[in-house]
Amino acid sequence: MTNINGNRFELNEYLNFDDAVEAVKWEVDRTLSTSPKIIRQYTQHLVVSRGKFIRTLSLLACAQKEDKMINRNAVNFAAAVELLHLATLVHDDVIDDADLRRGEITLQKKFGKKTAVICGDYLLAVSLELAASVSDKEDYLKLNMPSYVSKVCLGELNQHLNNHNIDLGIMKYLRIISGKTAALFEASFYAGAVLSETDPKRINRYRKLGNNIGMLFQLTDDCMDFEETTEVAKKPVESDYEQGVITLPLIYALKKDEVFKKKAEGKLSRSDINSAVKKTGGLDFTHMLAEKYYKKSLKIIADLELEEDKANKLKFVLDKSYRLI
Amino acid sequence: MTNINGNRFELNEYLNFDDAVEAVKWEVDRTLSTSPKIIRQYTQHLVVSRGKFIRTLSLLACAQKEDKMINRNAVNFAAAVELLHLATLVHDDVIDDADLRRGEITLQKKFGKKTAVICGDYLLAVSLELAASVSDKEDYLKLNMPSYVSKVCLGELNQHLNNHNIDLGIMKYLRIISGKTAALFEASFYAGAVLSETDPKRINRYRKLGNNIGMLFQLTDDCMDFEETTEVAKKPVESDYEQGVITLPLIYALKKDEVFKKKAEGKLSRSDINSAVKKTGGLDFTHMLAEKYYKKSLKIIADLELEEDKANKLKFVLDKSYRLI
Repeated sequence: MTNINGNRFELNEYLNFDDAVEAVKWEVDRTLSTSPKIIRQYTQHLVVSRGKFIRTLSLLACAQKEDKMINRNAVNFAAAVELLHLATLVHDDVIDDADLRRGEITLQKKFGKKTAVICGDYLLAVSLELAASVSDKEDYLKLNMPSYVSKVCLGELNQHLNNHNIDLGIMKYLRIISGKTAALFEASFYAGAVLSETDPKRINRYRKLGNNIGMLFQLTDDCMDFEETTEVAKKPVESDYEQGVITLPLIYALKKDEVFKKKAEGKLSRSDINSAVKKTGGLDFTHMLAEKYYKKSLKIIADLELEEDKANKLKFVLDKSYRLI
Repeated sequence: MTNINGNRFELNEYLNFDDAVEAVKWEVDRTLSTSPKIIRQYTQHLVVSRGKFIRTLSLLACAQKEDKMINRNAVNFAAAVELLHLATLVHDDVIDDADLRRGEITLQKKFGKKTAVICGDYLLAVSLELAASVSDKEDYLKLNMPSYVSKVCLGELNQHLNNHNIDLGIMKYLRIISGKTAALFEASFYAGAVLSETDPKRINRYRKLGNNIGMLFQLTDDCMDFEETTEVAKKPVESDYEQGVITLPLIYALKKDEVFKKKAEGKLSRSDINSAVKKTGGLDFTHMLAEKYYKKSLKIIADLELEEDKANKLKFVLDKSYRLI
């Protein structure tokens, strides 16, 4: 590894959790701020708009061994997942015509759609390069990161095609978010497990856990769009419908209330939506479903019979995704 | 491998050249027409709009061993390169607002920019998956395909940023096309060489050969935009400038003719451009440069001291790229 000033910086083969988190942040920043000059002015813009690193925390927790140490290859994998996530956000903003993301002006708004398309491609390629650069190539091959990229793309295409679709069914919606949000969580849990476990059956359970947590993360996100203020959500609320995205609380309301559905053939007002979603129980239904994924996740963590510190870290990620903390 | 009807189809470990070409075409078509239903309607559209498979011919020629046989992994690599090429075309069309490509309506025109962005992402991911699925993982790791993807992205971004830039210099232009067109040729030659050669120095010469051929391919393409009819070029001619792309013949003319450059600050007419490019020798200069790359390429092929059939195949690719055949 080389830091921003070009100095070599060697990671030990094993790191503790906190050092690993710092190393991932450092690696992501380094990649964004030392990319070729031509792309740096755009990617630099992304350094400040980082999220909660929830995928990194997941991956590192899964990668933690019995002695609480983490193979340094987890740092590469986590940075790769964060950059892949960033790439999908950049292209997502192009697709959604979004001006703001987490209160920051988007790359597509600031520099134009064309630049954003290429920057997203670049971030995607760099993410895959970073994953490929781990010292243990077997682990890299097992991960098969491109397959997660195509899954996420399909999820995005599916969501885009169902924008404004007031006939979107519940099962289909769950399939879409399983491909989109949950696939990236699954990749994080899988990559971590590959570094700490050998039994394919156990590795598969981590994978499932990742998918479940991804599902409840998205469903909780859907609910937040209806009930919270911008300050609490740290993202613009009441914006999904305005961007054409039909999420589960609304899907449920459209299914239960025929008068409301008839009205939805035209343009709905926010107060129409919010009251229908509350009245029909769309929010309660979505919360209930998220809770099911939460309980399933708790069970998988228990069944894995992990060392206490690791189990607690996974529960922390779970609670954070469920917005309990 | 599975064909379109789902029947298993096993390739022998080694194939002759013609069978390998067919297998690549079949694999590309299979990937496009058996992609998940949601994406198939778009990718299906691309099946018919295939090019000359020049990158496949290059890769397979490089992969040919002394006994004229080709490792079947070359089929995966070549199909991956073709799909990557297709992905860049799809995103290129988004960036250039192009309506037509080789006389066919583009994906972005037919289905919209948003769909084209995601389809390009999907093709990119599938291309990388295909490359990763070769039986010999060592060869795959050596190839490091994502690094070529980021190179191509940087080349595209650089080109896009220099659209309409009448001050673009000759060296900078050559660097742009070296990153863009030539990088994909380089990847093809490199991937082939990895499968037929062991000496890193020799493999590096193939790589250089690929870059040279990519350069002369692009420079010849630039010239065709000025001198040929649509029928001969099999692509719309007189279209680069109209799409904002400033190519070498025009760069040269702008450098040599100050009156013309002054005029270029406004909108140029086609007859202005064509006559300036001829008068200043911009076309001759570009041809001369392409010829230099041609001669360099011939020398590398000779220096490699290849078996006659393989040398002839590489010369065929060279002549085809130079539009001699």
